[in-house]
Amino acid sequence: METILHLLPLTPDQQAAFRSAAPEAEHLFLPTHDRRGATDIPPDWRQRITILMGFVPPSDLKTFPHLKWVQSWNAGVDPYMVPGVLPEGVVLTCAAGAYGPAVSEHMLAILLAIYKRLPDYRDGQKDHRWKDLGPVQSLHGKTVLIGGTGDIGRHFANLCRALGAARVVGLHRSDAPVEGFDQTYPLSAIDQLLPQADVVALVFPHNADTAGLLDRRRLLLMKHDAVLLNAGRGSAVDCAALAEVLSGGHLLGAGMDVTDPEPLPPEHPLWEAPRALITPHTAGGYDHMALTLDNLAGLFLDNLNRWRTGQPLRSRMK
Amino acid sequence: METILHLLPLTPDQQAAFRSAAPEAEHLFLPTHDRRGATDIPPDWRQRITILMGFVPPSDLKTFPHLKWVQSWNAGVDPYMVPGVLPEGVVLTCAAGAYGPAVSEHMLAILLAIYKRLPDYRDGQKDHRWKDLGPVQSLHGKTVLIGGTGDIGRHFANLCRALGAARVVGLHRSDAPVEGFDQTYPLSAIDQLLPQADVVALVFPHNADTAGLLDRRRLLLMKHDAVLLNAGRGSAVDCAALAEVLSGGHLLGAGMDVTDPEPLPPEHPLWEAPRALITPHTAGGYDHMALTLDNLAGLFLDNLNRWRTGQPLRSRMK
Repeated sequence: METILHLLPLTPDQQAAFRSAAPEAEHLFLPTHDRRGATDIPPDWRQRITILMGFVPPSDLKTFPHLKWVQSWNAGVDPYMVPGVLPEGVVLTCAAGAYGPAVSEHMLAILLAIYKRLPDYRDGQKDHRWKDLGPVQSLHGKTVLIGGTGDIGRHFANLCRALGAARVVGLHRSDAPVEGFDQTYPLSAIDQLLPQADVVALVFPHNADTAGLLDRRRLLLMKHDAVLLNAGRGSAVDCAALAEVLSGGHLLGAGMDVTDPEPLPPEHPLWEAPRALITPHTAGGYDHMALTLDNLAGLFLDNLNRWRTGQPLRSRMK
Repeated sequence: METILHLLPLTPDQQAAFRSAAPEAEHLFLPTHDRRGATDIPPDWRQRITILMGFVPPSDLKTFPHLKWVQSWNAGVDPYMVPGVLPEGVVLTCAAGAYGPAVSEHMLAILLAIYKRLPDYRDGQKDHRWKDLGPVQSLHGKTVLIGGTGDIGRHFANLCRALGAARVVGLHRSDAPVEGFDQTYPLSAIDQLLPQADVVALVFPHNADTAGLLDRRRLLLMKHDAVLLNAGRGSAVDCAALAEVLSGGHLLGAGMDVTDPEPLPPEHPLWEAPRALITPHTAGGYDHMALTLDNLAGLFLDNLNRWRTGQPLRSRMK
């Protein structure tokens, strides 16, 4: 018999759905709103838990002696992929597919804020200043380069099209076509693509290929009036180089929901870099949008059914 | 023979298109970037001009003795509709249809900024503060009430649908169905509709029916967590009442591109009202987006062709 720890802040209906999907299991509910993971799990629960649905600090994983499966609430599970973190034999699945609407909307919000100069207008409002700041930008006719063609990248591609983008190009590991993109290219084509893009939007996971991808040289390959967005993993962009490049007048703006390091330390130059818009890794908060929580609960339920019936799990990482 | 004054900052290609559309006419070009209208028109030009394409201050209209037709660059021509302003017999056409993409995008930008708490995150950035502010909102599943079902309202309806709105309802003079809206109602239904809407977006022209429409009583009919947007004419919303209502904790936010009075005086309480986001009537700047200028040039050309061939003009107001 399984003992399942549910860390998502599930609604009563969602809790009932899990109970009836696995009536023989023990269901423990510990609604957690801290995305760094639950730390207040009682010791006797730790002894019994076989399935963990949510997230605990990586160093805590060894405190569950009977753990068989971790279903993470994160789309990126890089902290659990570090060798030695996940105990031998434990299955790991990620939450790819749950965050597309939330993260892509946040990216669009940041892009439109930069395009319409809303941060400058907010400063004007604070000074009670009624002053037209002139031309603004639009996605109409623009070329958008999206790094990462998974669920989030595809959602963002659709939003860009809905707002009139002329061309949406994807960058990913292969060069297989992906629905919703005009073309897709392998990562190795990035130097040829950067100078063509009006918007460069990164939603890459962290891995050896993406870490440090947008370094100073590549930032300078971008169009002078392009916008950079990063809502994947902070490591994809050299944030010190970005602060320099922005200070030098290059780029129309940079909307950064993720940074490197993270949290961004108070003394980091990116905080004050002109035309930078920073949000503290909040685009994909698992409890920030009802739709995200619905998606996660649905995905967890589907995987639980697969687990009980011996079918292959979705988004299995280990 | 006509003498046409072009006040739009036309591109060389656009100028050439006007010349070849009416080769017999005299074309005078005075690119104007001040939306309050051109004031530096030479006196000898004023004597000759028969067609004015753009905008001049209303009190200036009588300084053109041979004026036959004014094609305004504004979608709303209320200052020219005041009795006695437009000289007897002069034809007036407005620029309805040119501003849909620009104004609807600006409205979406403001709505998403409020939904994703970008003004608060900007304040956090200024303090170098990496702090998650919790739940955000999305258009998914929401009901949007759009006041005004013309070009701008229809564009905004489409954007709301693309972002997942469940129901888009239009308010206008009749109750005839309009493409892109789930339902449309006459203005008299407003009190029944306000309590149902998550977003109330106004793009009304100024007239006797819309002036003062959103007074204190109707603002309080809105849902506690609804968002108000106004990008039509400032007179539709009582801005003093709005400031009070926001200060009292009602509404999730108010995104105001137009206000009453306008410019908003420095001492007006709306500047400091919590959850208010103000832009200084910039959503539809005729020279703010290349696409808007394209639309205006296309509309002016079409009407010039109609004028020359005796067909009815589009968007004729007088």
